[in-house]
Amino acid sequence: MTESISREEARRRTIRMLEQIGVVLTEEEKAKVEVTDMGLGELEKSGLQLITYINTDRYCAKDLVLMPRQTCPEHRHPPLSETNPGKMETFRCRFGKVFLYVEGTPAASPKAIPPAGSEACYTVFHEIELNPGEQYTIPPNTLHWFQAGDEGAVVSEFSSTSDDESDIFTDPRIRRLPD
Amino acid sequence: MTESISREEARRRTIRMLEQIGVVLTEEEKAKVEVTDMGLGELEKSGLQLITYINTDRYCAKDLVLMPRQTCPEHRHPPLSETNPGKMETFRCRFGKVFLYVEGTPAASPKAIPPAGSEACYTVFHEIELNPGEQYTIPPNTLHWFQAGDEGAVVSEFSSTSDDESDIFTDPRIRRLPD
Repeated sequence: MTESISREEARRRTIRMLEQIGVVLTEEEKAKVEVTDMGLGELEKSGLQLITYINTDRYCAKDLVLMPRQTCPEHRHPPLSETNPGKMETFRCRFGKVFLYVEGTPAASPKAIPPAGSEACYTVFHEIELNPGEQYTIPPNTLHWFQAGDEGAVVSEFSSTSDDESDIFTDPRIRRLPD
Repeated sequence: MTESISREEARRRTIRMLEQIGVVLTEEEKAKVEVTDMGLGELEKSGLQLITYINTDRYCAKDLVLMPRQTCPEHRHPPLSETNPGKMETFRCRFGKVFLYVEGTPAASPKAIPPAGSEACYTVFHEIELNPGEQYTIPPNTLHWFQAGDEGAVVSEFSSTSDDESDIFTDPRIRRLPD
């Protein structure tokens, strides 16, 4: 019951944050805002809110919303066929700040810390800090995770086709459930 | 010389419109805003301003900016190979109003009128009106043109890879020149 209230609160906060930065959503879209705690049951620490504008067999566009210091857990988008090397995605920060971690030289003093109790499931620490107007493209099949700064964040995601079910998370407890 | 001043004005207006609706651009991006009159020499009637955020071999994302009643002339994105049926694009209105015309049953009283003198180069009149938060996906190889309403418009374009040089315009005078 508590979790259900928390999801509904997260949905309302998401819509408010998007509206505050000038994103216009239809009523139908507001009803489709997704909230996921990835099955970990601690939404404010680990999870994500999002609205998918379009997802075709060629491209996808979403806005991702993170609450302050909320973390999207480490995962990668694996190859799906001989002609599909896996999802490629571009994150463009629109509000707040995002600390994005990918494979590569680890930061000496990372500005984000993995959620307490889940440290073992975070293995890449090459840091990219994204402020509004800044963007970064993550190659297919590359481990990554990200955390919002202290104000939360709104990130536009432009990508190839999205197929959440094929995502591979480092944390074996994670189930990427529909809302 | 007049045209060059007009392009610079269009660029400044574009940046201002984007900023007014909360789009944050880096200085590098501001310098990359494209202004094109499609070679017709009447930018305020026929043309387009745009900023490309990302264009990979899989997907593309842009913001298109139209001045009041400015028209992007009729064109289609043809098949490029056996595995590429042509560019597919989703227009999402973020500000103002856009009248989009595609192949199909023509509107009895279209809300946009093709630019004077170029009427012969506009052949499709199935009307889709897009207000903020509304979107429409144009299939590959489909003739389309669009015109902003009286306040101008900002439209996010999510699409497969963009290759402007392959676009086929109905108006044989059009050259899609880089800025």
